[in-house]
Amino acid sequence: MKLTILGCYAATPRTITNPTSQVLEIKNRLFLIDCGEGTQVQLRKNKIKFSKINHIFISHLHGDHLYGLIGTVSTFSLLGRTTDLHIYGPKGVKEIITLQLKLSNSWTTYQLFFHELESNESEVIFEDNKVIVKTIPLKHRIYTNGFLFQEKPGERKLNIEAVQQYDIHTAYYQKIKNGGDITLDDGTVIENEKLSFDPIPAMSYAFCSDTVYNEAIIPIIENVDVLYHESTFLESEAPLAEKTLHSTAKEAATIALKANAKKLVLGHYSTRYEGIEPFKNEAETIFPNVLLGNDGVTFDF
Amino acid sequence: MKLTILGCYAATPRTITNPTSQVLEIKNRLFLIDCGEGTQVQLRKNKIKFSKINHIFISHLHGDHLYGLIGTVSTFSLLGRTTDLHIYGPKGVKEIITLQLKLSNSWTTYQLFFHELESNESEVIFEDNKVIVKTIPLKHRIYTNGFLFQEKPGERKLNIEAVQQYDIHTAYYQKIKNGGDITLDDGTVIENEKLSFDPIPAMSYAFCSDTVYNEAIIPIIENVDVLYHESTFLESEAPLAEKTLHSTAKEAATIALKANAKKLVLGHYSTRYEGIEPFKNEAETIFPNVLLGNDGVTFDF
Repeated sequence: MKLTILGCYAATPRTITNPTSQVLEIKNRLFLIDCGEGTQVQLRKNKIKFSKINHIFISHLHGDHLYGLIGTVSTFSLLGRTTDLHIYGPKGVKEIITLQLKLSNSWTTYQLFFHELESNESEVIFEDNKVIVKTIPLKHRIYTNGFLFQEKPGERKLNIEAVQQYDIHTAYYQKIKNGGDITLDDGTVIENEKLSFDPIPAMSYAFCSDTVYNEAIIPIIENVDVLYHESTFLESEAPLAEKTLHSTAKEAATIALKANAKKLVLGHYSTRYEGIEPFKNEAETIFPNVLLGNDGVTFDF
Repeated sequence: MKLTILGCYAATPRTITNPTSQVLEIKNRLFLIDCGEGTQVQLRKNKIKFSKINHIFISHLHGDHLYGLIGTVSTFSLLGRTTDLHIYGPKGVKEIITLQLKLSNSWTTYQLFFHELESNESEVIFEDNKVIVKTIPLKHRIYTNGFLFQEKPGERKLNIEAVQQYDIHTAYYQKIKNGGDITLDDGTVIENEKLSFDPIPAMSYAFCSDTVYNEAIIPIIENVDVLYHESTFLESEAPLAEKTLHSTAKEAATIALKANAKKLVLGHYSTRYEGIEPFKNEAETIFPNVLLGNDGVTFDF
């Protein structure tokens, strides 16, 4: 699992920082999460292949998470894309995109599918044979979802030595990989765990931005491998965080701790701060495993 | 008169080039012309004061001229702007902007005035005591206007030696500056040109993008000081220019020649070309005074 931060600063794009957008590579799938202005250029800078992106997830309709979407959708067309593109986001995202396509008289060269979200409960919005994506309802000034990306557990690994020792026919290998016990010709039952190893652990990633401190998300993201949680402010600006329905670095760390996350990635920093190191320092007073998100940074998990 | 090119490449933004946007400074007014994605960052890079922009002109609703507008409008709000902002553009621009503001529940901190254009005839869309702006109807795949910015002629300059020689009272100075003749006490009429010098010549700038080769614009832009005319293609791609309703560098130069423009600025280059010098070379076979527009370049006229 690999996370590339295209942008992780709040509010307006600047010459040196970009609004929210990131690419999650999970089980060879590339998911684009949020799409602030300049995302398509950030994709180019980070050498992400446009053609590998088939699913875009939009957390909410504030500009710093959205205003690069129409340009990305249009550029995909200009490049002659023919593969379907799926966009998941709050109700309204379809109208915003289609209105602009209509008025520019430039329809996409590919099929565009909108999956508009309205529920306030966590729901499965994407599922294939390897990955499942669920919403994480967040509390912000407008309707907002985070997204939980989970790998499905893979097959068990065949213990080839053991299998050969019991002289099991290859026809039964898939059954073993699927976790089944094997009954030998003499009626002996060999338990699966004697014939196979555990699969590679399934990874999970939770993207939570933008949100006020909200413990209601903990059951949804519990035991997540990597939690990206917004930290727009430091604790010194806690009243402002509460007022604007954002979080502090300390609050992000508290959610990571209570949710038993393995790692915490910080981001969505207010541009009022000169440097971002203090976010890490503050979070580490609560939670040990903190990574500083930053534009152009890739994390391999 | 000063022109700063923020972006002058066609279609999609890339790491090294930007879609169309430019700032014209004329008589101390700052006009933003077109607003492709990334314009607000280009404004920052070129140290243009956001607060000095009160009028934005949008030629047409293709993304490479428009998709940076909503971000610019939003950032003005985030910076706490209170001054009115006027946006001139094709019918539909208001719906695009207000829909996104509505769905993000983020109204502007300032008054936003839309001046939607529908006419196929040249019309005055802005006028104050120093500058007048007219549309230049262009032929493109969707409804498109260029814009002609004209300084109003200033007052005549007092010829102070002559005025003193005729012993003319200061009360008559403004009349002289306004071009009036003076009658002395003995009934002699002194013609204005003996008492004053011509004013500084009024400058004009015509922005023509995007458009196919179209001689119908010549009467509108005749004798213009500076003509910016799109040259998406070179003559080698003339059939493609015609098909997509764009122009070649040679065609841009032909319009400049026939309109008796003093200078021609080229731009809106297709990103298919490696360098832009060939555009200048091609245009110069037709018209002598060619300037290559390029991102981040400022011309003082």
